[in-house]
Amino acid sequence: MSGSPPAGLTARQDDLEAALKALVADRPLALYRMMGYHMGWVETTGEERSAPAPLRVHGALVLMVCDALGGDYRDALPHASAVEYLYNHILIHDDIRDGNSERAGRGSVWWSWGPAQAINTGDGMHALARLALFGMRSSASSDAVSDALRVLDEANLETCEGQYRDITLQERLDVGIDEYLAMSEGQTGALLACAVRLGALVAGQSSEAISAGLGEFGRKLGAAIRVADDYSVFWPDGERDEARQGRLVAKKKTLPFAHALESGSPTDRRVVGEIYMERVIDPASAERLTAVLDAAGSKVFSTSTIARLVNEAISALEAANLPVAAIEELAAAARFLATPDGLDYAAMNRGEEV
Amino acid sequence: MSGSPPAGLTARQDDLEAALKALVADRPLALYRMMGYHMGWVETTGEERSAPAPLRVHGALVLMVCDALGGDYRDALPHASAVEYLYNHILIHDDIRDGNSERAGRGSVWWSWGPAQAINTGDGMHALARLALFGMRSSASSDAVSDALRVLDEANLETCEGQYRDITLQERLDVGIDEYLAMSEGQTGALLACAVRLGALVAGQSSEAISAGLGEFGRKLGAAIRVADDYSVFWPDGERDEARQGRLVAKKKTLPFAHALESGSPTDRRVVGEIYMERVIDPASAERLTAVLDAAGSKVFSTSTIARLVNEAISALEAANLPVAAIEELAAAARFLATPDGLDYAAMNRGEEV
Repeated sequence: MSGSPPAGLTARQDDLEAALKALVADRPLALYRMMGYHMGWVETTGEERSAPAPLRVHGALVLMVCDALGGDYRDALPHASAVEYLYNHILIHDDIRDGNSERAGRGSVWWSWGPAQAINTGDGMHALARLALFGMRSSASSDAVSDALRVLDEANLETCEGQYRDITLQERLDVGIDEYLAMSEGQTGALLACAVRLGALVAGQSSEAISAGLGEFGRKLGAAIRVADDYSVFWPDGERDEARQGRLVAKKKTLPFAHALESGSPTDRRVVGEIYMERVIDPASAERLTAVLDAAGSKVFSTSTIARLVNEAISALEAANLPVAAIEELAAAARFLATPDGLDYAAMNRGEEV
Repeated sequence: MSGSPPAGLTARQDDLEAALKALVADRPLALYRMMGYHMGWVETTGEERSAPAPLRVHGALVLMVCDALGGDYRDALPHASAVEYLYNHILIHDDIRDGNSERAGRGSVWWSWGPAQAINTGDGMHALARLALFGMRSSASSDAVSDALRVLDEANLETCEGQYRDITLQERLDVGIDEYLAMSEGQTGALLACAVRLGALVAGQSSEAISAGLGEFGRKLGAAIRVADDYSVFWPDGERDEARQGRLVAKKKTLPFAHALESGSPTDRRVVGEIYMERVIDPASAERLTAVLDAAGSKVFSTSTIARLVNEAISALEAANLPVAAIEELAAAARFLATPDGLDYAAMNRGEEV
């Protein structure tokens, strides 16, 4: 993410935050305090925390699409809350799985309360995500509730499949570019696809063509965001933050890595392989690795891939004949979300070295 | 569980097993192989395993209640599958949380594939549980789908709340009997309550009175099953199996323990406290602990409590005016499920030393 978020993503932020908070507000059990901590609302002690709400991408996309397609975004608040909680349930479990001690600059849930509570808090948030949708009941038909739940559950299962593939890729060195991108479309993209499809559903736009177009948009955007994050692992804007340092040290597979293995010279490939055989990657090896990736052209390949994926995402909207204004809003959001910190989308799109 | 299960629990076992298998049958990703392994259908290699299906209590209760209340149990197969998968998702996560290396005599999922895959496999099974319910769509209204999903999601959240309380109790010594039973009603009972309520829902019996009566039945039965399991931790029928050995060593809170602390002599209480301050409980301490519990009358208190809870469960059905035949079937199932291995329900019910 580079620059300021477009208004389409931020305009309904306060309403979203209020809807999310309302779902735990009347639940005094400390289980919900851990959820509130993860969401950034309270400290570990339960004391209120005054910090600006982060950009909640999934929820914001639901509301933006609903509005852009002629719906009343307030009708989509239960959907936005559901997908946002579903996403955060995954983050809580991811932090355990990846051993991340931090999340957004604070101790992760498992780090603060141990893995047993964290697994359960994630599971509880998963249940809450669905109960959010029952909040729409009075104003909507059961058909609408069950359609929305189905979109949510299918996306959830697809995310788990992507997660499975991701974990499996960690055990292998020979991860191809296409395989990596396909995994990212599922693991990161399925839930974004779900978000935009839910927004359209509430706006009464659930034709096959629109669903498919938005689904494709979400998947490609997910892969683009993933590659942007990969890019920042090797070429951060300023200091490499803890999360990215962690991904580097843990030798998470990334697009630049897959590219160097597929397209680098035999020497490049040997060096990359050797570094990845080290138990953990120390700072010196990290620098050596980045230099090899630079030499192999993996940096510019990454930024070009991001631009290609974003363009494909936007083309899918055009193919589905979405209104021009909606396409423009989604395109602006996609460019913002998929541009690595400090880079310029237009330059990436021209294939320039950045 | 003592003796042979009543026919009401086993009569539809093959249909249930087939419905459960059908949900993963066309999914080739190895994620589903891990699920199939947990369910007992395949080996870690994916090779088919020929072992008799275990009694799937939650699913069996759904089908039994549907049938007993005049429904066609085949209409309830999606519900039975949903609640059974939901239950098994919890087991997969529990094994990580409790560090159980075994489940039903085989390596647990996290033991076989590591915690990262196990957390994700549990999450995937959670999603699958809900998708099971969409299988009923063609023959049922959307109202029915969303009613069922709501019962499932609320029970799920209540289970997580119980889980939270259970984890928290582990950190304390002064766990009271009532507090322990209330936690068990949620953690173990919420999903059993959900099972019997779903069975009734499919049979078209969703009046407030019947829902409440069945809910109470499930909660009390859950607490009774929990106490039966606690009993077997200290007074196993034959050798103490690995799971119970694990619960003992990990100093899991149990009803006999809570009873000895609340009702034992000052000396009993001091000894119990001292043993629980040990880092892990070795076999000698375990014997000393059991002797103290015996002396404090915690053994007969446990069996009497089981009988009391089962009687309360059955009374709730009577108060809801369920048909006599249905009450009899549910009562037989409850007595079977809540009787510790090797004991006789009638003797427990008479308050005899067993």
